[in-house]
Amino acid sequence: MRFNAESSSDGVSERHFALGEVAGVLWSPAGATAGRPLVLLGHGGGQHSGAPGVRARARRYVTGCGFAVAAIDAPAHGDRKRSDDDERFMAEIARLRADGEAIGPRIARRNAVLASRAVPEWRATLDALQAPECLGPGRVGFWGVSLGSSIGIPLAAAEPRITAAIFGLTGQETLAGAAAEITIPVEFLLQWDDELVPRDSGLALFDAFASREKTLHANPGRHADIPAFELESSQRFFTRHLLPDSVSSTAGQLAAEA
Amino acid sequence: MRFNAESSSDGVSERHFALGEVAGVLWSPAGATAGRPLVLLGHGGGQHSGAPGVRARARRYVTGCGFAVAAIDAPAHGDRKRSDDDERFMAEIARLRADGEAIGPRIARRNAVLASRAVPEWRATLDALQAPECLGPGRVGFWGVSLGSSIGIPLAAAEPRITAAIFGLTGQETLAGAAAEITIPVEFLLQWDDELVPRDSGLALFDAFASREKTLHANPGRHADIPAFELESSQRFFTRHLLPDSVSSTAGQLAAEA
Repeated sequence: MRFNAESSSDGVSERHFALGEVAGVLWSPAGATAGRPLVLLGHGGGQHSGAPGVRARARRYVTGCGFAVAAIDAPAHGDRKRSDDDERFMAEIARLRADGEAIGPRIARRNAVLASRAVPEWRATLDALQAPECLGPGRVGFWGVSLGSSIGIPLAAAEPRITAAIFGLTGQETLAGAAAEITIPVEFLLQWDDELVPRDSGLALFDAFASREKTLHANPGRHADIPAFELESSQRFFTRHLLPDSVSSTAGQLAAEA
Repeated sequence: MRFNAESSSDGVSERHFALGEVAGVLWSPAGATAGRPLVLLGHGGGQHSGAPGVRARARRYVTGCGFAVAAIDAPAHGDRKRSDDDERFMAEIARLRADGEAIGPRIARRNAVLASRAVPEWRATLDALQAPECLGPGRVGFWGVSLGSSIGIPLAAAEPRITAAIFGLTGQETLAGAAAEITIPVEFLLQWDDELVPRDSGLALFDAFASREKTLHANPGRHADIPAFELESSQRFFTRHLLPDSVSSTAGQLAAEA
């Protein structure tokens, strides 16, 4: 892993890195990196590891929770090379949109192909981030919706170091098998009026997770309309699972009585 | 409204009251009642306004959020008189259970009858609690699942003073019409393996609310298995809507970028 550039502002260190052809960003509290939980962020389709929404979420997890946070560019995203197949996909999506046809199923199949390339890239990135000279070992969470879940669900199924995950905005078609192998706590975001993912397919994917603790958060609106309060909810989810000693012990007692 | 008994412990004042034949409890921060938000708690079937779970939730909302909290006994609950019809219902439920038959539909019809009596009782209680010599006016929320929702949903549809509500553990059959009249923010709790409420009926009821902001929280487990973290989630929901000035303004900005 090669670090290319480092900057620091408002208490957050931001380091850009490359691992082979994969570029990424590591955010952490300025001056203190070792031994803290790490949240991996999977960006959405067409975005990249330094996109404004990814960066804002990362900085929030650093300042609000004290986590380290990492994101990498998915295959064919950011500055990474596009293959002929990538170009054909983008042309086909443009044609489907122009014809007013459904693009969801085509995106799901495409994302499954990207995931097969991205999962080993994420695992190699995690190896490098947890090396003694970088963060060292610690608890690991994953957050990613849409393309971030198409990659994150098979990643979490394959990678035992990930112990809590937030997924969403995707359906069962290509992912139910991997979801059935997942037993860690999961928070799943579903948009009730998602124009890309049929409601029943999203509900069936939530149903498929083998996790004893899984919680579905469904909200009105289209694919990109996740409400602001889910950001705060995600902080609490990761704090509960990655910093368990910080959670009030009275919550369990009270709820057990309710 | 007649206050019968008052006690105070750990900073929480607890006052038992009666309004006609309806008994209830008012919890508030010791020594300070006026001008703060009020959360109405609707208890579940077979419980009452002083049940341990109701009391624990009320005290949590007082100490954690600074709210006043009130609960009243539903018709035929607590020390209230049972009619011949009430006795017939309980005998019928016992028979259905013994025969291994579904009791959910019978409970839903029964709860609709109780609600027609309970809604005016709640509204009279709210009038009395908001009188100048008691709490005075202020924002009002409602929390109640199962029987608490069978009563709370028609109550919120009829009562404009309620501006945020948490419902759940009930289905569309007798409630979709009232839900369609509700436009306030709603958090809806659904148990994925509820033995009393079919999953599709609960999802259809969530769908029926006319609220622009509504959020479904679905968790694995049976009717009574709502996980502990939903208590904390409910505090945040009511804080967001009943104490809006207390919420960080950056959450919206960050999520808008995501």
